[in-house]
Formats: sequence, C-alpha cells, structure tokens
Amino acid sequence: MWLALDGEGPLYRQAYRALRAAILDGRLARGERLPSSRVLARDAKLARNTVLQAYEQLVAEGYAESRRGAGTYVVGQLPERAIRTARPARARAAADSEPPALSAYAERAVRHFARGVTWGRRRPAPRFDFRYGDPAYGDFPHATWCRLLGRRARRASERHLSYSDPGGAPELRQALAAYLSRARGVACEPDDVLVVYGTQQAIDLTARVLIDPGARAIVEEPGYPGIRHALEIAGAEVLALPVDGDGLPTEALAGERARLLCVTPSHQFPTGGVLTLARRLALLTWAERVGAFVLEDDYDGEFRYDGRPLESLQALDRSGRVLYAGTVSKVMFPALRIGYLVMPRALRDPLLAAKAFADTGTAQLEQRVLADFIAQGFFERHLRRARVRNAARRKALLAALARELGDAVEVVGANAGVHVVAWLRGVLPGELRTLRELAARRDVGIHPISPFYATRPRRAGILLGYAALDEPAIAEGVHRLALALREMRKS
Amino acid sequence: MWLALDGEGPLYRQAYRALRAAILDGRLARGERLPSSRVLARDAKLARNTVLQAYEQLVAEGYAESRRGAGTYVVGQLPERAIRTARPARARAAADSEPPALSAYAERAVRHFARGVTWGRRRPAPRFDFRYGDPAYGDFPHATWCRLLGRRARRASERHLSYSDPGGAPELRQALAAYLSRARGVACEPDDVLVVYGTQQAIDLTARVLIDPGARAIVEEPGYPGIRHALEIAGAEVLALPVDGDGLPTEALAGERARLLCVTPSHQFPTGGVLTLARRLALLTWAERVGAFVLEDDYDGEFRYDGRPLESLQALDRSGRVLYAGTVSKVMFPALRIGYLVMPRALRDPLLAAKAFADTGTAQLEQRVLADFIAQGFFERHLRRARVRNAARRKALLAALARELGDAVEVVGANAGVHVVAWLRGVLPGELRTLRELAARRDVGIHPISPFYATRPRRAGILLGYAALDEPAIAEGVHRLALALREMRKS
Repeated sequence: MWLALDGEGPLYRQAYRALRAAILDGRLARGERLPSSRVLARDAKLARNTVLQAYEQLVAEGYAESRRGAGTYVVGQLPERAIRTARPARARAAADSEPPALSAYAERAVRHFARGVTWGRRRPAPRFDFRYGDPAYGDFPHATWCRLLGRRARRASERHLSYSDPGGAPELRQALAAYLSRARGVACEPDDVLVVYGTQQAIDLTARVLIDPGARAIVEEPGYPGIRHALEIAGAEVLALPVDGDGLPTEALAGERARLLCVTPSHQFPTGGVLTLARRLALLTWAERVGAFVLEDDYDGEFRYDGRPLESLQALDRSGRVLYAGTVSKVMFPALRIGYLVMPRALRDPLLAAKAFADTGTAQLEQRVLADFIAQGFFERHLRRARVRNAARRKALLAALARELGDAVEVVGANAGVHVVAWLRGVLPGELRTLRELAARRDVGIHPISPFYATRPRRAGILLGYAALDEPAIAEGVHRLALALREMRKS
Repeated sequence: MWLALDGEGPLYRQAYRALRAAILDGRLARGERLPSSRVLARDAKLARNTVLQAYEQLVAEGYAESRRGAGTYVVGQLPERAIRTARPARARAAADSEPPALSAYAERAVRHFARGVTWGRRRPAPRFDFRYGDPAYGDFPHATWCRLLGRRARRASERHLSYSDPGGAPELRQALAAYLSRARGVACEPDDVLVVYGTQQAIDLTARVLIDPGARAIVEEPGYPGIRHALEIAGAEVLALPVDGDGLPTEALAGERARLLCVTPSHQFPTGGVLTLARRLALLTWAERVGAFVLEDDYDGEFRYDGRPLESLQALDRSGRVLYAGTVSKVMFPALRIGYLVMPRALRDPLLAAKAFADTGTAQLEQRVLADFIAQGFFERHLRRARVRNAARRKALLAALARELGDAVEVVGANAGVHVVAWLRGVLPGELRTLRELAARRDVGIHPISPFYATRPRRAGILLGYAALDEPAIAEGVHRLALALREMRKS
C-alpha cells in the first residue's frame, strides 16, 4: 500500500500519520487487516521496526487493535459519521468557509486592525528617518543593562521562577513609586503601581474596567490612535475633542458626561501643547462633578526644554479620579514592554483582577532588572543624558527647519517631548503622499500627522521625531526634505 | 511660615510641593505675596537657592507669578472652586466613598478575584509540599538558559529592541510550530502560532474573540478555574459538564449548543482521564455541527507513562475548529510567562488583533532565547530527562500511597501529567480542612480538589503533585500524611 509520508519528524510518526489518514479517509476500512509489518516495510521502503512503531502508536491511539498471532486490524467502533466526513469536511470548510460567529469585540478589533493600526516595522527604515517612537538605541547603556540582567537571571531563586503577584514585582513597584514621586510629582505608594506590558495594556485594562458597550469616552483630537481604537473596540462611544495650542479646551467639556477622559496634559500628543494649570484644575473639577475617571497618558513627560518638567495631573488630583499611565519604552527601548499604571484607590481591585485574568501578571525577570536599573541610579543618569542629547537634537532640528524651509513650515509643539509638528504651508493634504515618496527616494522618512486624527485635517502636517538621529543627520535630513519639497513644487 | 517637607527627593521639590499644598488649601490666598526667599530660607532652614528654585517651579507651573522688584505672588486666576474644595474633596472622597461606575466586566472580575483565584504563592511552602503546577526548579538547566539569555541580550540589534510583530518573534513561531508538530502532532505553520503570555492569556484572548455576554460556553467539571472564571467574567453563560474516567462524556453534548467548548483531552485536569478516540471524533463532529470552537488546553500533554504521548485533538481536526493552547511554564518555569495558541485560520485575524490591542505583542528577548533553547535541542533533552524523573517520582508516590494508606485512598489519573488525585475513603469533605492543618504541622502540603469544582464534590479528594519533590521526599511526605490521617481519625 502507498504511504504518503509528509517528511516531518521521525519516520515512524510519518508512517503513523499516513496510516491514520488512510483510516480516517476510509481507504483502510473498519475492521480491515493492516498489511503485515514486513510487507509494508518493503512496500514503503521503511525499516520493519519503524512500521512496528507506527502500528504500536495506532493501537495506543485507538485506531487499530492487535490480535495475538493474527496481525493488526483497524478497529470497528470508530464513529461512522466521523470516518465518512473526515476528508470531505476539510474540503468543505475551505470551500464555502462561512464566517465564524465572533464576538462583537472581535468584529470591532478586526475592523480596526485591518485599518492599519500596526506596531512593528514592516520595511527597513530610511537612513534619515524622522520617525517618532523609537529612541536612539545606541545611546542606551546596553552593557550595563545586560550586566544587571545576567546577574538577576543567574541569581533567580525559586520564588523568582514561580508565579508572582499580578500587581508586579515588589522591587519594581517600590522603585517606580519612588521615581514617579520624585520626578513627576505622582502621589503614590508601591501598592498603587500596577506593572503592565506597556502603555497599550494600561489602556486596555482601563477600558475593560470602565467601558461597557455604549459608554461615553472622550479623547483628544488629534491623539494617539491606540487609545481611540482600544476604546472603540471596547464598545465605547468615543467623542474626540479638538485640542488647541494649550491642549484640551476644558470649556468644551461643560455639557459633556463620560465614563472616561483620556488626556496627555504634559505634552499633547501629537501637537505638543501643554495643558495650563487652569485647565488642569477645571478638568479635575469636571471629572469629579460628572463622576468620570481621567487617564493621564504621560507618554514623554520626561522631556521638557523650557523650565523644569511639569508635574503630573495626578499630583493635583484630590478625589482619586486620575489613572496615571506611563512607559519606560520611550526612554529605554520598546521591546522591553514594561509600563505602569498608577491606580486610584477605587480602581485598584478591578484593575488588579483584570490584570490577573488577562495574563496572571507581568513576567518577572525584566521587572527586577528594571528595579535595579532605577534603584542604582542608571535610569535617571540615562535620562539626564538623553535630555541633554535631545535638547541638542531639537535645537539642530529647529535651526535646520528655519534655515532650509523658513516660512514654508509652521513648527509647533517644540517645548517638550522628542518630536515637533511641522505644518507645511502651500501643500495640500493630498500632496503629502507624493512628498513622502520624493523624500523616501532621498532616504528621508517623514510621517504625516493625519493618522492621529479621527477626522482628517485640512492642512498638510508631518511629525518630525528627532530622538533617534544625531545632529548632522538631522541637518542633512532636513536639507534633503527641502529638496524633495522643491522638487514636488516644480512638478 | 511652616513648610511640611515630605522627605521625598530633592529639597527644592519638597519645598515646592509644600508651598503648592498651601496654595491649594488656601493657607496662601490668591494674590498673596509669598515670603521673601531669604525669610523663608531662614524659617524653613533651607538654602536660599533651594527656596528660589521652588519659587521658580511654582511660577513655571502657574501657581505663582514673579513681579519684577516686588517679589513672588500667588496668582489670582486659579479657578475658585478648585482652590476651595481641594482639601475637603480628598476628605470627602475617603469618607462617603461611593462606589465608582465600573464596567460589567469589572464587576464580574472583582467578584471572581475576591473569591480567591490567585496565582502567586502567599506563604512559604512546607517542606513536603505536594503542590501542583510548580516544576522541580533544581532540575532545570538554568546555566544553559542564562548563557543563551546573555548571548541574545548582548547581541540584540535595533530590530530586536524596537516594536515587534503582535503574533510573536518569527524564530519562536518557527521553533514552536516544528516542536508541536513533532511532539504533539499539531498541524500548523509558524503563522498559525500566536505567542502569548501563558495559558491565561490564551484563554482570555479566546474568550474575547468568541464570547459575547450571554453566549454559551462549556467547560469540564471539575476543571481549571482560570478557564471557568475567565469565561464567566467575559459574560459567558457557562455550563460545567461532569467528566468521567475517560474525560468529557460527549453523549452529554447531544442537545447542547455553544460558542466555545474548553477541554483537556490528553489528561483531564484535574481528574486525569484521557479522552478516548471515539469521544475525540464525536466531539469534533459535534463542534462542526453546532458551529462551536474547541479550546484544547494541552497543559501537560508532554507527560504520559503508559505508551507514547497521545496526539493532540487538534491533529484530528479537519474543519478548523480547534484552538490548541499550551505553555512551557509547566516544563520550564512559570515566571517565564510564555505560552502559545495555535489558531485555526478563521480566528487568526481576530486573535492577532485582540493580542495587538491587548499589549502590542509579547516581549521579545525571552521569545528568542526560548527559540534557541528549542532549536538547539535543550528543550526536548530537558523534557526527556523530566519524563524519566517524573516517571520515577510517580512510581515512588504510587508505591508510598499503597504502602502507607492502602485502601484508605483511591488513586486516579496516574497515567499522565505530574499529579494524581487521591480520593480519601471515610473522610468527609468538611474534615479536609482539619487534615490539611494536621498535615501542615508535619510540614506536609496537601491541596484539596474542591476548588476545581463549580459544585463542591461530595467526596474528600486531594491533588498530589509530584514533579517538585524527589523520591525520598515523596516517601517521607506520604508517610507523614498517613500519620496526620491517623491522628485525625483518633481525635
């Protein structure tokens, strides 16, 4: 008999699978005697022992039975329908492939996912890529990190290798609470800190504990799409409020109610406005009045160039309505996947439960390494250096933009963060695609602001991230961008 | 004036916070002149420069303004209500603390969480702890793991440090697909493998894409509470079908419809039955007929003692209805937090989207290390050794139970896995608590089976895990358990 071996793994398993397929297909009928192992070994050019092992497996799995002295037989009691339909079923499933019944959540998630919300890069980046979100990897003290990592890994005790607290490793909660209080004025105890797998999980858990389908949520327009999408997928009715130069205009909240408001007060993402104190207080008053929670996404609050970093909104919160979310990815490296959510007391249990049921808690090793990295001062030292470097890069970018593009651009949001927004004068939004291509040909990466809008803006704007380029590269990149712009205008 | 410094971080920040609190409390009124820096420095025993820095910060944050030559003043335009209520609001929030508006999900999650579903150990384990779920940490080739970890960490390129594919690291998807096909007969390509943070996340993502509130889901009774709870929290109406010695009795499915059926075919958890081939086929036929998906939790399919490991249910699936979930935690160490979900084609996009919106994808470093560990043969070598060791431990446990307890126990589920169930004859379920305490006094940990039941069983049963104890410890532990049992019966 013919055995179609699939070439995967040990030969006896291949023979077993081929025989099983023959049984399920009905090529070997119920009760039929299998060829003797000697015959099959000869036919299929297998060692006899291989065939014997395959038969043994068939018997163990219940497809065949061995009758003493009489050889091996296909069993009689395989449910008839199952045998008959085994092969046709696969063909049918492929053919009519009716869409399966998914949850409403899944339908929404697929729709948004297909719309192109992607993490992970698809193509190699151009040489002068003004992308936002990646730090300069070469600046990170990687050797120090690896040393701490190796030490923690080698010294892991049983406790460190077993299951852990869903809230996070105690060392890290302690280190983060101290750091956030020191650097961002966040009022918290270690128990208030929930360690999560990055900002996206902080948003997802927040949505899960606050959003029922149909609940109202408010976000900034423009804003980080990961927030808006996560809320929409959770079933929220999302209102996107346009920001101005000082961030979210709290007057616009007057008639609104919501379960959740998401805001980037230190540095509006992506337009760069800093929420004024008056607005911060008005926002908290509103939240208290309508019973809303506020998710403060302090995504790059570490970087501010005029004056000291502003304190967090959470620091002003007197009624426990602010969830403070942040990440170390922007400062260290995104693959680390460690973020934090400082929880108001009223949401501690729900958020811990949601985290526990989502994944039982964040993996421990990197948490402990990060705790060391913070507690031993490496984190803040790296941050200080990054601040100096980013200030110089920002200066180089602003100078190059003024020099090369002058009045052709309006630059906003330069006071903080690691990117600026450049509105291109005399360029239509529809022309940005061409400009992008012309720039790409000159090895320059530019990134339109439009994906951050729920309603496409009427002006052509781009985000220029400067944290991952050195100063000569920034100057050269802007020079090339100016050439691309001139080229587009000529054509 | 009196400054209540909180002792956290630099002195100027402490001074700044104390002054801000005074402004928000109204102790420093709107428009009031702040003491001169010299006076405050003297009063508060601070350097004058510290006070100047604090004032500068107050000005930067908009709490104060500096009038040239006239000193620093509290601003006039702080919203009045915010100032007045700042302090009382906090007190009020603590006082009446009305429950916040949570999502239905959160209400359910908190209720289940409070019921004591916990991961993470609370107390130090007794010396002879027959706990289930922890492997023997000392048996793991930790030095090899650390070596691979160190190498991958040191050689991380930019691509490895940046954002990644939500499905998982390509190397690991490849290694897992090959391993699962080799070892468990799972039919899959690397793209079918979703890398997740352990089995709990596999369950959570499955529930998210398949369960709407009110949808029917079927689980085994008894079963892993993490599954039942996750489904109930997702809003499912959960039917728990009692298993028998061969696992889930598929006859019981005849009149049922469901979105999702969760099953442990290789080794029913926790009772240890192995689903017969006839039942496997009947189950798949049922799933196809009613349009249900099947989550196969192959939580310890690696360990089987009579004959070779059974192939997975997924290997029999001809119509793409089986989701195959597994973890390496049980074989390696739980803190690793890496599991996998082999996705049927129809659920690939929804599951990838759900994973992307949950956390953007699993952290990369350990994925790559695990890929090396598998591809270089360490994983399967460790598994082979673990099988030999576990077989010996199982034998020691069964012998000790027969010797020490004889007819006092009925042992089931010993053919596979890393634990057995011992039903205690002549012990009432209510007496187990006493037995547990008496055993604990002898440094023995026993774990009742009742938490795994939705409806408490009428017999007293315990789970005896043997993977984490060596043979002498097993013999001694059972001996002490027998003493505890005798002691209970005497009293």
